[in-house]
Amino acid sequence: MNKGFAIILVSGGMDSCVTAAIANREYAMALLHVNYGQRTEARELKAFTTIADYYKVKRRLVADISYLKEIGGSSLIDQKMKIEHSSSFRGRKIPSTYVPFRNTHFLAIATSWAEVIGADTIFIGAVEQDSSGYPDCRLSYFRAFNKLIGQGTKPETRITVKTPLISMSKRDIVIKGLKLEAPFHLTWSCYKESKRACGRCDSCILRLKGFSEAGIKDPTPYKK
Amino acid sequence: MNKGFAIILVSGGMDSCVTAAIANREYAMALLHVNYGQRTEARELKAFTTIADYYKVKRRLVADISYLKEIGGSSLIDQKMKIEHSSSFRGRKIPSTYVPFRNTHFLAIATSWAEVIGADTIFIGAVEQDSSGYPDCRLSYFRAFNKLIGQGTKPETRITVKTPLISMSKRDIVIKGLKLEAPFHLTWSCYKESKRACGRCDSCILRLKGFSEAGIKDPTPYKK
Repeated sequence: MNKGFAIILVSGGMDSCVTAAIANREYAMALLHVNYGQRTEARELKAFTTIADYYKVKRRLVADISYLKEIGGSSLIDQKMKIEHSSSFRGRKIPSTYVPFRNTHFLAIATSWAEVIGADTIFIGAVEQDSSGYPDCRLSYFRAFNKLIGQGTKPETRITVKTPLISMSKRDIVIKGLKLEAPFHLTWSCYKESKRACGRCDSCILRLKGFSEAGIKDPTPYKK
Repeated sequence: MNKGFAIILVSGGMDSCVTAAIANREYAMALLHVNYGQRTEARELKAFTTIADYYKVKRRLVADISYLKEIGGSSLIDQKMKIEHSSSFRGRKIPSTYVPFRNTHFLAIATSWAEVIGADTIFIGAVEQDSSGYPDCRLSYFRAFNKLIGQGTKPETRITVKTPLISMSKRDIVIKGLKLEAPFHLTWSCYKESKRACGRCDSCILRLKGFSEAGIKDPTPYKK
């Protein structure tokens, strides 16, 4: 069987790692990572590189969009803003870590690259329900993006964005990853720290909840 | 009357200059320019700066997305590819100067910036009919992008992309610009050269046609 050819967005967190594990079964992979001036940029890049090595992927692109830091408006990229501790994940307002329209920048890069190298699929590990509630992580957003690709690329181009985790719980993502031998030990999720994870930001809390509910020990080192 | 607040994408060419002239009547303006490794990058930036000075706009953002050059796939950014001379503008295939999905990168930056600074409108000087035939310059593309903004930003955010030139001919754009005193003498359109315009690339031919049909002398210096 001829494998398809896909670009996988790999931030270095657990969701994108499991997404790569899923794509790896059916596609030849090219991996994309984006630096956007986030606090843990270097740690995430290290996670990306080691995950790409793990899957023996040669075709890699690391794109810098540091203008996002200049635009600001998010505690992930503005050191003057405070990252809230996680308290409740449903029904509250969009957290300060929301980076305005971020996924559009990521997917624009992936789509341009896909059109040039001839990939027909883009995988992104977005999660809708069990997440921080960012608007650009909703299924309706990705549907709209797929329509945009149809309008903004060459007539012969066929590229589809796929979101295999969109409806999964963090628990199910952990279980799926284990089954596919995703290298969780190489991933990094914390928004704030780069040596030992803080264990208190949205991203840490969601991760810890997933591992806890799956009954699995998270290999990430946490602050005491 | 309270003016609205808009971001104008200003490449430095004649279309974006006339677009700024149109927006200037009804909006307070913030101007956005994007460097993407195109051949005439420095010349276009100079045009942007002098146009921004002309309109006395303080709020400016110059974003660098040099990863587009790394992705390649277009003669505008890949010096090994040849820029075709213009021959016919209708019914032929998409020219080599097409930069894959480029407007999505530009509009993603504009939308993120608009959400942070509170602008409610984005102006882009795209032209559909009398143009090079890029897929991401069609009205249907911008309609799809406006839907994407609705899905990918905060619930309270209202941002609309406007394309006042989309159905205009190059001739009408020249006439409109003259009427609004758009500073054509500050603009730069040539894809290839930065001192004297080549007069032969798509962009020069479209510009010359517009001025010629309007019966106006183009202030750009051309090669003999």
